[in-house]
Amino acid sequence: MRPSRLEAFSDGVMAVAITLLVFNLHVPSVPGAHLGRALVHAWPTYLAYLVSFVQIGITWVNHHSIFMEVRFADRTLLFDNIFLLFGVVTVPFSTSLAATWIRSGNGAGLAVAIYCATWVFVSLMFTLSLSHLVRHQHLLKEDRIDGLRLMRRKGYAGLVVYGSAGLVAVFDPILAILICLVFSLYYVVGVRSDPSTDSP
Amino acid sequence: MRPSRLEAFSDGVMAVAITLLVFNLHVPSVPGAHLGRALVHAWPTYLAYLVSFVQIGITWVNHHSIFMEVRFADRTLLFDNIFLLFGVVTVPFSTSLAATWIRSGNGAGLAVAIYCATWVFVSLMFTLSLSHLVRHQHLLKEDRIDGLRLMRRKGYAGLVVYGSAGLVAVFDPILAILICLVFSLYYVVGVRSDPSTDSP
Amino acid sequence: MRPSRLEAFSDGVMAVAITLLVFNLHVPSVPGAHLGRALVHAWPTYLAYLVSFVQIGITWVNHHSIFMEVRFADRTLLFDNIFLLFGVVTVPFSTSLAATWIRSGNGAGLAVAIYCATWVFVSLMFTLSLSHLVRHQHLLKEDRIDGLRLMRRKGYAGLVVYGSAGLVAVFDPILAILICLVFSLYYVVGVRSDPSTDSP
Amino acid sequence: MRPSRLEAFSDGVMAVAITLLVFNLHVPSVPGAHLGRALVHAWPTYLAYLVSFVQIGITWVNHHSIFMEVRFADRTLLFDNIFLLFGVVTVPFSTSLAATWIRSGNGAGLAVAIYCATWVFVSLMFTLSLSHLVRHQHLLKEDRIDGLRLMRRKGYAGLVVYGSAGLVAVFDPILAILICLVFSLYYVVGVRSDPSTDSP
Repeated sequence: MRPSRLEAFSDGVMAVAITLLVFNLHVPSVPGAHLGRALVHAWPTYLAYLVSFVQIGITWVNHHSIFMEVRFADRTLLFDNIFLLFGVVTVPFSTSLAATWIRSGNGAGLAVAIYCATWVFVSLMFTLSLSHLVRHQHLLKEDRIDGLRLMRRKGYAGLVVYGSAGLVAVFDPILAILICLVFSLYYVVGVRSDPSTDSP
Repeated sequence: MRPSRLEAFSDGVMAVAITLLVFNLHVPSVPGAHLGRALVHAWPTYLAYLVSFVQIGITWVNHHSIFMEVRFADRTLLFDNIFLLFGVVTVPFSTSLAATWIRSGNGAGLAVAIYCATWVFVSLMFTLSLSHLVRHQHLLKEDRIDGLRLMRRKGYAGLVVYGSAGLVAVFDPILAILICLVFSLYYVVGVRSDPSTDSP
Repeated sequence: MRPSRLEAFSDGVMAVAITLLVFNLHVPSVPGAHLGRALVHAWPTYLAYLVSFVQIGITWVNHHSIFMEVRFADRTLLFDNIFLLFGVVTVPFSTSLAATWIRSGNGAGLAVAIYCATWVFVSLMFTLSLSHLVRHQHLLKEDRIDGLRLMRRKGYAGLVVYGSAGLVAVFDPILAILICLVFSLYYVVGVRSDPSTDSP
Repeated sequence: MRPSRLEAFSDGVMAVAITLLVFNLHVPSVPGAHLGRALVHAWPTYLAYLVSFVQIGITWVNHHSIFMEVRFADRTLLFDNIFLLFGVVTVPFSTSLAATWIRSGNGAGLAVAIYCATWVFVSLMFTLSLSHLVRHQHLLKEDRIDGLRLMRRKGYAGLVVYGSAGLVAVFDPILAILICLVFSLYYVVGVRSDPSTDSP
């Protein structure tokens, strides 16, 4: 099977998941509220919205980069992809969980750890897909094996960073969120300024 | 009509339906709740989310496999496909119904039976589409009639399994959910380990 | 501009709108309710869900049929299409309005009239698009002008039927819903049984 | 990378965002309400729904016009596009904020200013993307540099109009909404009546 329909379905799922993040933003109700203060008070919601949006955006770019190199998708790749999407679809939920609980005394650590675990799962499915492709090179277009190995190394980096952030979350949830944020910004800024990354 | 736009529309609908499943996951409200206990208590919700996600994923793979063989889509196939999508779009509702009622005394059987009925309907529309294609072979690309007959047999299997699960649900709703789960896992694991299924 | 991206965007919007209809189905809350009775009591919701799903499905098939004949889309067609989609996107709201108010004494007529008005608007945008294409034949692929005139005549039929149903709704909302239902079923059954409609 | 998948993902996100606007329309609850009066009272909601729908529609047309000229998308363009989509996805939220608060004494100015700021951000990302393309002409298809410069000038116009509307909002929120509405209608009506805009 050619991967075009797999890409179309994945684009659709990621497009819906990234857009559903907007449901994490709540309009303060009119009577008795001061709009400015209510919006400022909800800052973790906006931060979580921004971080998750950028992370799903990066996931889409990486998905794009991998499947550009794929000529045929076998059924293993189809199902690996479905579980990858399972992780992405869970992001609006785990984002809402983290944003709601970040300031509560007893649940913030667990909530942020679950948030990080979602991204550990996504990174894991990426590395599984990449390992499957490295082992079955007839699925690839040409001699792109080095590029995929490089991407798999980035996938391992994601596993380590998000896994560590999840452990840190138990002690310091805010620090864990900052690790995720810095990791994302580093990725985006690095890509935007380094012309050599145009051909990954 | 070529099936490309039918595939695009179906991909869109299935992508939205599979992503809307995330609305079945509820963030526990902060005051007065113990996050860990609240999440553990909601386990049927997570199980239903996982099962439905995998089942819609399988549905998409099967849809993909069928329309790969189709050269022209007549209007009968278009409308059969719309009713197939009608079943898929109902899944987030029937999933929520089953997850909400599974632990109630008097409604669990009916709720899980409705859940199974949704999948009976989807399997039925698959076999109707396949029968239409087997009877109108000029709609197919080449001599793919054997592959479609094999898929139709799998469609009958789905009818029988989901129909039986629906009957079982009246007496034992948990067992019915397990039947659906095992059927899905069998399908995914079988496909992932058996290389011969790469060309269905 | 070639219409491929217009089709992709329209497919996306219609796919989301048709899937959002599922939010009109509500899961009865567990304590104190009898599931079977609660579901039976909500029958207008299910009827409205089915009717709207089939009508958006027909809209998609018609959209498909029209743009198959289009070679170039000018900006007038783009904006006509956006207003057509505006009508389709409003359907989940007007469906919910009609299903919620159908059994209330003083609001049922207005609610169903608004539901019909949504479909009058969609039919109107279809006939506007078709008239623009008939007047600017260089936008078409070949000598398909007769097919488009035929479709425009069907568009006028939709205007008359939905407009009449809207007027009827003021006196008898249930009859108005039945008119919409029969019109849809007539269309689907006619298409499914008449092979000559395979090439509209 | 060819921009086809970027277009598909953007179409998906914009299709979902434009459809989610329908959640700003609320069905009045049955007991104790007069349907007609309740709907009339909610007029800012409908106006905001219409304005936002047309503005996202215009955004999609502009996106379409720009990427028609693009041959390759580098990673800078990918990430600029993701931030553009970030703005579009925020529109259902800021629309709901403006519609909810427009008639409150102390929050209307801030709410409408945030609404305008969303569109300032979208216009800004458009001009950033266009400037990147003007500076890296090897990404373009042919000698389309003049068309892109013209579009960038329109982008600056958007920045100025929405920025001014945001400032006006602090003193007169209704006037600010009217500025946005007139700007959109001017664009749509101008395009619909001027045949020269068919080839931008």
